[in-house]
Amino acid sequence: MSQALQETLSRVRSAVDSRLPKLLAHGLSAGLLEDPRDPLPAAAREALLSPGKRVRPGLVFLAGELFGAGEDRLLDPACAVEMIHAASLALDDLPSMDDATTRRGRPALHAVHGEDLAILAAMTLVVRAFGVLAEAGLSTVRPAAALDLVSRLADASGLQGLSSGQALDLRTGDADASFDRLETIHARKTGALFVAAAEFGAVLGGARARELAAVRSYAKNVGLAFQIVDDLLEKEDPSRTGKQARRAPAPTFVRHVGEEGARRLVGELTLHAVEALEPFGARAALLREFASLLRDRSA
Amino acid sequence: MSQALQETLSRVRSAVDSRLPKLLAHGLSAGLLEDPRDPLPAAAREALLSPGKRVRPGLVFLAGELFGAGEDRLLDPACAVEMIHAASLALDDLPSMDDATTRRGRPALHAVHGEDLAILAAMTLVVRAFGVLAEAGLSTVRPAAALDLVSRLADASGLQGLSSGQALDLRTGDADASFDRLETIHARKTGALFVAAAEFGAVLGGARARELAAVRSYAKNVGLAFQIVDDLLEKEDPSRTGKQARRAPAPTFVRHVGEEGARRLVGELTLHAVEALEPFGARAALLREFASLLRDRSA
Repeated sequence: MSQALQETLSRVRSAVDSRLPKLLAHGLSAGLLEDPRDPLPAAAREALLSPGKRVRPGLVFLAGELFGAGEDRLLDPACAVEMIHAASLALDDLPSMDDATTRRGRPALHAVHGEDLAILAAMTLVVRAFGVLAEAGLSTVRPAAALDLVSRLADASGLQGLSSGQALDLRTGDADASFDRLETIHARKTGALFVAAAEFGAVLGGARARELAAVRSYAKNVGLAFQIVDDLLEKEDPSRTGKQARRAPAPTFVRHVGEEGARRLVGELTLHAVEALEPFGARAALLREFASLLRDRSA
Repeated sequence: MSQALQETLSRVRSAVDSRLPKLLAHGLSAGLLEDPRDPLPAAAREALLSPGKRVRPGLVFLAGELFGAGEDRLLDPACAVEMIHAASLALDDLPSMDDATTRRGRPALHAVHGEDLAILAAMTLVVRAFGVLAEAGLSTVRPAAALDLVSRLADASGLQGLSSGQALDLRTGDADASFDRLETIHARKTGALFVAAAEFGAVLGGARARELAAVRSYAKNVGLAFQIVDDLLEKEDPSRTGKQARRAPAPTFVRHVGEEGARRLVGELTLHAVEALEPFGARAALLREFASLLRDRSA
């Protein structure tokens, strides 16, 4: 990895990791957060602050910097995207969904705090994400741009995004798993939030419509490739992700077209992603490298 | 009930009932909504469109009209509040929460569609509520006002609102149920969304800070009274609400201070609510009557 990309990603991770607890606690008195009788803040904190790579915030920043957006405007929107992602992980692990007992090697949220609090913590993170965007729109971000972000994040999380992708993933058997259907599932379950992250950066940098479309295409392809690489890594070493799920494995491209076919697909998707950046020339060097990094993370 | 209030509430109910399915379907092709392979839209529709009194949208309109807000600007924000309410009902009924098999005399959402889809449907309604507010802010509502609504709705639904109220309600036993604690639970679980509904109307009507505070105080008291009346009705006739829950009953004011004490409390709260309207004189006649209506709905 180039030093420039390494520095950017590690700066983003630190900034996000130190900003997330502040954004979650906003408006709450310290007493409330520590109140042992109120069990929800601790569950929400754990869901949000368990160690993560902060890939989506990284994408917000890389896309934002392509269009010259200042980091002060990117940080809170990037945290909002991460809140939605953290909520989706807490829900994925529930007994009624993947029925996972561990996540990243630690006990799943519902195993520690109970199913009820895991669900309410996820809900809390989702609504807080929108609260954070609203507050950004009343301070560092123009109101119309902030509303645009709210709208994009809502679309990415709802009936055409994350929630739908998760529902389809849960309710699709191997027999129904056509290539198109798998693409729809991954595009919604993983791609939609990648697209929103890249759009966030582009919108905050004042990108024009055609530039926004190029960045969307990049992020959609990167998101799909990311998901397939995840499935390949999981297949090679099920213990690697630290997630133990009792649910039968969901249909994946790896199962559908085999490991070699899946690797070829990752190559094609990464190529498409990089091609979408052509109009930006050398300015998009870090985004190009980011695509390769996500592809090669098995290395 | 006066003819004026009856007409307003029934007009709001019709408008909301016909607008909700359109707002949920926004941006989705008809094909997607009807796609039998995608089970989520049907679950979300059922969660949102099952018959309801639309009390919170009624409050948005009554507060809005006090400040002269046009109905065209009130409708979509009122629907956003109802989406959050519908989501909270779907979650309340889950096996890990109240474990209800029926709601309003019909099978609970999770009993029909499965726990996974009930949770994802709730998530979908929550994010759609914020999407609706963002779209309103890009059309009929000023952007800064729309962001203000997003912020208020997020606060009303998160760690100081609905989600926290539900968590406290689930984790408070009769032994911990002090008067203060019950007030906190009800203020968050029921009061916060009533307050947001009234604030929505006031903000959209351009209310000043002092007027907003008066309307907040009204709504907070009305919301608490509403919850206690619910508990009284439930106690008198458990079949009336059409909800069958397997969870042991949560602590309520009715259990804490007895039926007579609870009735006295409802009277006091309604009085406080009406007193808060004093600055508005005769213009607040419908809001005053609305408070009495909620109090007397056992009649």
